[in-house]
Amino acid sequence: MKSELRLGIAGLGTVGANVAQLIERKSDLLAERVGRKLTVTALSARRREKSRGFDTAGMAWFDDPVALAREGEIDAFVELIGGSDGVAREAVEAALQRGIPVVTANKALLAHHGVALARLAAGNGTEILFEAAVAGGIPIIKTMREALSGNEVSRVYGILNGTCNYMLTRMEKEGLTFDSCLKDAQDLGYAEADPTFDIGGFDAAHKLAILTSLAFGTEISLESIFVEGISKITVDDINAAAELGYRIKLLAVSLRTDSGTEQRVHPAMIPARSALAQVDGVTNAVAVDSDLLGSILLAGPGAGGSATASAVLSDIMDVAGGFVPPTLGLPPSRLQPYVRARMRAHEGGYYIRLSVFDRVGAFASIANRMAENGISLESIVQRKADRQKGEGTAPVVLVTHETTEAAIRAALGALSKDGHLSGEPQMIRIEDLD
Amino acid sequence: MKSELRLGIAGLGTVGANVAQLIERKSDLLAERVGRKLTVTALSARRREKSRGFDTAGMAWFDDPVALAREGEIDAFVELIGGSDGVAREAVEAALQRGIPVVTANKALLAHHGVALARLAAGNGTEILFEAAVAGGIPIIKTMREALSGNEVSRVYGILNGTCNYMLTRMEKEGLTFDSCLKDAQDLGYAEADPTFDIGGFDAAHKLAILTSLAFGTEISLESIFVEGISKITVDDINAAAELGYRIKLLAVSLRTDSGTEQRVHPAMIPARSALAQVDGVTNAVAVDSDLLGSILLAGPGAGGSATASAVLSDIMDVAGGFVPPTLGLPPSRLQPYVRARMRAHEGGYYIRLSVFDRVGAFASIANRMAENGISLESIVQRKADRQKGEGTAPVVLVTHETTEAAIRAALGALSKDGHLSGEPQMIRIEDLD
Repeated sequence: MKSELRLGIAGLGTVGANVAQLIERKSDLLAERVGRKLTVTALSARRREKSRGFDTAGMAWFDDPVALAREGEIDAFVELIGGSDGVAREAVEAALQRGIPVVTANKALLAHHGVALARLAAGNGTEILFEAAVAGGIPIIKTMREALSGNEVSRVYGILNGTCNYMLTRMEKEGLTFDSCLKDAQDLGYAEADPTFDIGGFDAAHKLAILTSLAFGTEISLESIFVEGISKITVDDINAAAELGYRIKLLAVSLRTDSGTEQRVHPAMIPARSALAQVDGVTNAVAVDSDLLGSILLAGPGAGGSATASAVLSDIMDVAGGFVPPTLGLPPSRLQPYVRARMRAHEGGYYIRLSVFDRVGAFASIANRMAENGISLESIVQRKADRQKGEGTAPVVLVTHETTEAAIRAALGALSKDGHLSGEPQMIRIEDLD
Repeated sequence: MKSELRLGIAGLGTVGANVAQLIERKSDLLAERVGRKLTVTALSARRREKSRGFDTAGMAWFDDPVALAREGEIDAFVELIGGSDGVAREAVEAALQRGIPVVTANKALLAHHGVALARLAAGNGTEILFEAAVAGGIPIIKTMREALSGNEVSRVYGILNGTCNYMLTRMEKEGLTFDSCLKDAQDLGYAEADPTFDIGGFDAAHKLAILTSLAFGTEISLESIFVEGISKITVDDINAAAELGYRIKLLAVSLRTDSGTEQRVHPAMIPARSALAQVDGVTNAVAVDSDLLGSILLAGPGAGGSATASAVLSDIMDVAGGFVPPTLGLPPSRLQPYVRARMRAHEGGYYIRLSVFDRVGAFASIANRMAENGISLESIVQRKADRQKGEGTAPVVLVTHETTEAAIRAALGALSKDGHLSGEPQMIRIEDLD
């Protein structure tokens, strides 16, 4: 058996403690699988005193994670501090500068500085592993970096935020409003006190930025992602989706187009009979379309201490095994510059829900504005007007054939100016999963 | 860049030719990803003359694959001949005896001789890779051997045969009978002229035998698998399943029980709203339940030249990278003996469809036989008797609460002897996917 792999773990929250516990508890199994013993030799966390469910005897303690990365007697550095900058970044850089491989669950660090860090790693003859940074326990990084290594990817998409998926699932199944559902999610610990990062789509965007680079061999470009959260989704939309044979999910999508890479995170209608549509609750799922495989789908837990720890452990085992592919799938020098396809050029079908004043000319306005912008309609459903409060309004739901984002925005802008609408039009993109 | 990896490919059917073409066509991409050039240096196939879509200049030709494995100037041997014995086995053994790693898509070879071959490999300091042997392009072997390496698995199950899934999907969507559907599948090349291996469940059993070993760290035991094919499934069952909120799939299941490992392949009713139930046509899917991850699901193409070639290429890249985990996930000496849980001890819900003579006492016979065997019923549906042909018979559909296979068999045996049934009872197991 080869010499032991000495690990330094920085950050002992739920995931970090879980990883250390697993290495202690499953020591023999892990050693048999990889032919090498894993030993935690150094630790760093904010507070030292806390009991964390594993035996820290013989492990060196560092108050400063950067000192651990710089001076610890370690063969691999496990960064579970979090945050795109600050000590997490400094510590990772310090480890890489020593040529020590880094295992991290830090999506923000990679989404913001992934290319620079990949360069630093390669320059020092090492790599970064980050299975836990995207979709928790789902082995999507390993799949994209290794299993698909002979494939050219055309699209990667999925459900990457458990909080949003949990909320949309409950809104659908229990008819809850967005606000009451959010409160419940917060009470249950599925949503943060400030939920913006999750429900605004930003968490999913960070993960998508990383997947895009792996998928297309391009530099990471978080700032190019079109991001729209779920806060405007109503039970009316969810019910209309069901009637039309769709379900609404917060989808993260990245695809190659003629004008560059299109990255977007937004609520989308997807066919109710698709496997992706059955992904409920906090579960995540990622699908990849590629030349050799056609389409594959991976679904599983997107968060949680033990699932994330499982992903971290998988990376540690790869380091122990001795081979790790290039951080972003290719040597950093071979990554292509990111070319952004503008969101206005996005092509697809659209669902539009309008609240229309029940008066002469309203429907003609809709029909004309769509026609003017070259938008053809797949279906139109107008419900009976609600006349109880003053001038009646009628809900109208349109589903368009494939058109462009620019055309839809122009049509809705003109429609709003015509003055027949009560309130803002609702628009949800339809994702074709074939 | 490290020295090139020299490959010998034996078997140049669709998959073998595809692999060689991809290595030629994607040469630069593959070398960038793994830091090493892949070069096919030796070939063997039945006929030499055939043009196969890649340049064979500089490649040594062997009429005998065993000679290639024994004498070829190669660093890895790619076996794409097929068959559990004969030259495929001999050639693989010859390569392993030289300490050369083997990449194979041969499920029969592994299901029958996997443990012996793993021992031979380990004894010579090398390993066998077989991503393409199970579920085609889905990276389930890599996932189980590497991504789940810290997990203890409790159940692995899935849709492992594309032919059966294609047929069941068409029977459901088009109301076709089994026989007409089989003929169509044969005409379209989705089923063999002798379809027994697929529709009898044996193909899925071979794949399951391999997954079971990886899941539970046990020796492979193909002969312990309870196998039941799909030929008795009727459109009536499919329609009844739909009414009850299920879909019928040929499921391969392996799980740990108190009395050992339970391996079975049979048609099963699974919840229509589950992700697995949406896996249609020739697509395969595998789900794994484990301690750290809960449940993950992988779906994708289960067969086809390019998907299988993609999996072979992924294995070749791993060999080029230099680390491969133990063939069956653990060193062969650490594999546990296989302990078989008897199928009669299987616990679950059951769907039973009876054709009952429309006479006094028939229903009492059903109720009594179930009660005698401790079986409680979740639902009973009796349709109106069909009186057009002599003594009328009425279809009766029962769904049981959880019970044992032994109890169901005893109840149905007694019921048949009571003489109230026209024809054999139909019984389909219900799989709980929670």
